[in-house]
Amino acid sequence: MTGFFTEERSVETVNARMGKHINPRLAEVMASLVRHLHSFVKDIHLTTDEWEIAIGFLTKAGQICNAERQEFILLSDTLGLSMLVDAINNRRPIGATENTVLGPFHVVGAPERKMGDTITLDGKGESCLFEGCVINAHGEPINGARIDVWSDNADGFYDVQQPDIQPKWNNRGIFTTGDDGKYSFVGIKPVSYPIPNDGPVGQMLSSLGRHPYRPAHMHYIITAPGYQKIVTHTFVGDDPYITSDTVFGVKHTLVAPFERINDGSTIWRSPFNFVVTPCDEGK
Amino acid sequence: MTGFFTEERSVETVNARMGKHINPRLAEVMASLVRHLHSFVKDIHLTTDEWEIAIGFLTKAGQICNAERQEFILLSDTLGLSMLVDAINNRRPIGATENTVLGPFHVVGAPERKMGDTITLDGKGESCLFEGCVINAHGEPINGARIDVWSDNADGFYDVQQPDIQPKWNNRGIFTTGDDGKYSFVGIKPVSYPIPNDGPVGQMLSSLGRHPYRPAHMHYIITAPGYQKIVTHTFVGDDPYITSDTVFGVKHTLVAPFERINDGSTIWRSPFNFVVTPCDEGK
Repeated sequence: MTGFFTEERSVETVNARMGKHINPRLAEVMASLVRHLHSFVKDIHLTTDEWEIAIGFLTKAGQICNAERQEFILLSDTLGLSMLVDAINNRRPIGATENTVLGPFHVVGAPERKMGDTITLDGKGESCLFEGCVINAHGEPINGARIDVWSDNADGFYDVQQPDIQPKWNNRGIFTTGDDGKYSFVGIKPVSYPIPNDGPVGQMLSSLGRHPYRPAHMHYIITAPGYQKIVTHTFVGDDPYITSDTVFGVKHTLVAPFERINDGSTIWRSPFNFVVTPCDEGK
Repeated sequence: MTGFFTEERSVETVNARMGKHINPRLAEVMASLVRHLHSFVKDIHLTTDEWEIAIGFLTKAGQICNAERQEFILLSDTLGLSMLVDAINNRRPIGATENTVLGPFHVVGAPERKMGDTITLDGKGESCLFEGCVINAHGEPINGARIDVWSDNADGFYDVQQPDIQPKWNNRGIFTTGDDGKYSFVGIKPVSYPIPNDGPVGQMLSSLGRHPYRPAHMHYIITAPGYQKIVTHTFVGDDPYITSDTVFGVKHTLVAPFERINDGSTIWRSPFNFVVTPCDEGK
């Protein structure tokens, strides 16, 4: 009888319950979610005990969330879902700079700085000159591109994780390109660090035989009028975690050179060009 | 390069990260979960905004959970997942009494009562004689079957939801069969009620054009040595929500007769036989 549950028709029974006049996109998303979740339970023959573990996991994840901690984003990140959502929503032509995860440590309103300025305020770490050009697919420089950069400090913590220890805006800054599209600033060669792993996601990683580390990276958000926003990192290629980023953020095009220069004050140089994509392309 | 993320190989990249010496069942369950979640995101082309809504939903669900409130179980219930997990773990021969959801209102340790006793202590509602037999597939009566019963009161609340209003153990009791396998007790004809709908699951149901009601039902847990535990309800067939239980708990074999008898003190009679299944059968 319509509306009564059977194992065989479980998906149809649930999805038939939706009203006729609801948001059509919501209906489509939820119908697909129900179909995939029921397939999962059936494929794997999920036991009642396993279902209880899942309920307990989700509950713990929710209860550890607060203003500074977002366990469900960590869960999404560590299952590769954040990168997947980003990838399908930001498909770009070959050669264009690719996106990666935003991460939880971006702060709006970092200081505007002049080209060549230093963003490292705590004096720690191996200094590194980051430089290059913001260009389009034809190699033409982009004027007025805004480059918002941030990284951890030499101890592997962002300033917002250590407000009592690090100077405010340590290893952060915003730079705007001129006619030549060039950018340059001095930061540190960033270091690898673990994601917060004292909660259920950390336990999950441990049970899966996975480490919680991210390879060293410099964060960028690049915006320019008429071009797609780029949310990305550049990665340190010789990092021990470069092929096992716990949030799957590494794309091979985002691995940047880090060359020893030892010019007195600066130890490293990391050249990287950002290739922007017009708003209407590749979506 | 191995370990680097691509949209096309997102599932393989994530699942390849699992360690070699982990619990094999966990590996199997997680690999399937990742496969289905990635398929969902790809099939539906989930947008970044929709991903953010999902993260917000899960966070709110976690934060409304407390000792009396389990929003993730409500979520599982309203997506038909609880019934599905129960179904695949409790397959029984045709004719055997089927399971349905336990629900959040069972309390261990209800008073043992004598056959024929009344479980309704608040004097509210239309009284109903529940009676029948616990039998096996051959119709033979089961001696020593323990029948744990509970229902809401006439206002649609369980005693534990109104500890200051209802008498303790109102509409609850445990009965044990004798040689004849028979049981009988007096309760009320139960009434329909909404699941807690002031949280994110309530909002979800509303957005889906679904009501939050369960059709009226009497809860049972039946245990007998050598037989599978039955966790089930009997349902009132003429309930307006009988074909639209918000947790999909209704199976047609669980709809019980409710006959008017008006024998003076008792208004209704609901006969129902429970057919138990040997532990080793039908799994």
